[in-house]
Amino acid sequence: MRPEHEIKLRVRYEETDTMQVVYYAKYFVWFEVGRMELFRNLGLEYRRWEERGLRIPVVEAKATYHASAKFDDEILVKTRIAKVGNTSLRFENEVYRLPGKTLLCDGYTIHVLVNSRGKPVEFPREIAKKLSPS
Amino acid sequence: MRPEHEIKLRVRYEETDTMQVVYYAKYFVWFEVGRMELFRNLGLEYRRWEERGLRIPVVEAKATYHASAKFDDEILVKTRIAKVGNTSLRFENEVYRLPGKTLLCDGYTIHVLVNSRGKPVEFPREIAKKLSPS
Amino acid sequence: MRPEHEIKLRVRYEETDTMQVVYYAKYFVWFEVGRMELFRNLGLEYRRWEERGLRIPVVEAKATYHASAKFDDEILVKTRIAKVGNTSLRFENEVYRLPGKTLLCDGYTIHVLVNSRGKPVEFPREIAKKLSPS
Amino acid sequence: MRPEHEIKLRVRYEETDTMQVVYYAKYFVWFEVGRMELFRNLGLEYRRWEERGLRIPVVEAKATYHASAKFDDEILVKTRIAKVGNTSLRFENEVYRLPGKTLLCDGYTIHVLVNSRGKPVEFPREIAKKLSPS
Repeated sequence: MRPEHEIKLRVRYEETDTMQVVYYAKYFVWFEVGRMELFRNLGLEYRRWEERGLRIPVVEAKATYHASAKFDDEILVKTRIAKVGNTSLRFENEVYRLPGKTLLCDGYTIHVLVNSRGKPVEFPREIAKKLSPS
Repeated sequence: MRPEHEIKLRVRYEETDTMQVVYYAKYFVWFEVGRMELFRNLGLEYRRWEERGLRIPVVEAKATYHASAKFDDEILVKTRIAKVGNTSLRFENEVYRLPGKTLLCDGYTIHVLVNSRGKPVEFPREIAKKLSPS
Repeated sequence: MRPEHEIKLRVRYEETDTMQVVYYAKYFVWFEVGRMELFRNLGLEYRRWEERGLRIPVVEAKATYHASAKFDDEILVKTRIAKVGNTSLRFENEVYRLPGKTLLCDGYTIHVLVNSRGKPVEFPREIAKKLSPS
Repeated sequence: MRPEHEIKLRVRYEETDTMQVVYYAKYFVWFEVGRMELFRNLGLEYRRWEERGLRIPVVEAKATYHASAKFDDEILVKTRIAKVGNTSLRFENEVYRLPGKTLLCDGYTIHVLVNSRGKPVEFPREIAKKLSPS
C-alpha cells in the first residue's frame, strides 16, 4: 500500500488573480505543501534531508485543471507516493473543493534525489523503507 | 509558420528558494509572461480579450526541468503557439539561461476560450486569423 | 476590548529565498491570512463584503523584522483590530516562531472601506458593531 | 547626490488578485527589483556580496498606496539610496503607472549588513564609497 496523506488549506487572497479564481501555478505550491506533510507523516521531515546534504529537486511537473477555486474556499490536497525508483520519486496529487469534494485539479511531480554537489544518489535504506512500506 | 516570441527576464530574489535556485512553480509564471508578450506581439493584447468578456483559463500545464536558474541570472523565455483548435489553444515554452543558452526548462500550457459565464466558445474570426497566420 | 485572533501556519518552501529564510514580503501575506481569519471569527467573512460590493484595500502597510523564519518552522500570527474609523480600519500583527514564541516580525496595515466604484464609504452599522464591540 | 535608478516593469497576471488590481505585497517585490538594479548600476551586483559572505536582510519595510495598478500596466520603479549608516542602508522607492506617471505607491526599506554568521558588520570601504559617492 502506497503512503498517502490529506491536508486541508484555505485559499489565500494572494493566491487569486484578475480572473477571481486561484492562479494556475499556485496548485504546484499546494502540491509542495502536500508532499512535505506526507513526508512529515512518514517520519521523514524534509528539513532533516537537507541537514544531511540531500535534496529532491523537481524534474517534471504536470497539472490538469477541472474546476476553479475562489478566495476563501476550503480545499483538500491529497498526496500519494506513486512510484519509488533507486534515485527518483513520483508523487500524485488531487485537489478538491470542500464541502462536496469537487475535483479541482490533479497532477504529479517527479523528483530526483541528489547530494550536496547535485549528483543523483540512491535513497538511504531507512528512507527507502519508509517510502515503500511494502 | 507558427507565431512565436522571445522575452528576456532577470531572476528576482523573490523567485528563489532555500535550495538557492528558482522555485519550480515560478517557471509557470514565466510561461504566462511569455504568452502575454506573444499576444501583444500579435496585436492581441490579453486585456482586450477580458474587456470583451473572453478569457482563456489553463486546463493543462506541464514543465520538465533540465538545469536550475539562480538569483540574478538572465533568462530567455521562448513561447510559440503550437496548436489552435476551435475553442482551445496550446502554447509551448522553453526557458534558457543567458549567455550560452543552456536549456533550463521546457513545457506547455493548454487553454480553452470561455465567455463571461465560463462556457467554451469559438475564437472570433479576427483572433483566429492572427493565431494561425498560415 | 479589541477583537483579536491567532492562527498557526507552517512555513512553505515557496515562501523562502536564497538567504534560506522567509522572503520579507511574505509576512504581508501572513498578515492578510491573519486579518481574514479574524474577520471570519467575528462573523464577518470577507467574501460576504465583496458580495455586497464592499472592499477594503490597503492604504498603508509596515513591518519590522526581528528574527528570521526558516522552511518548515511553525509560526503564530496574532492579529488585532487596533482602530476603527468611520471609513478606515487599522490592524496590528505580530508573527512568532513556535515553540518558544520568539518574535519574528510585527507590523500593521491600514485599510479604507470603498464601494464598487472605489469611493470611500462608512461601515454599515452591523459591521461597525462587530469591529468595535465595546 | 544620492545614487538612484529607474526601471520599467510590466504587471504580470500572477501579481494581481480578486480585486483585479496588484496585490499589496507585490510592491515590495518591485522595491527589491529596484534596489537590485540600482546595485548593478553602481557596479555592486548583489550576488557578488553573497559570494563574499555578506548579506543585507530587511529590518523594516513600509509602503503607502495611492492608486492601484492593473494587469498589463507598464510601471516605473524609482529607487534611491536615502541613507548610508556604518552597518545600515535605507532605500526609498516610488512606483508610477506609465504613461502619465501617476504615483501608485511609495515606501522604503531599511537593511543591515551582516556577515555569514548574521552579525552586523561595517560596509567594506570600496562598497561604502560607491553607496555614498559625493
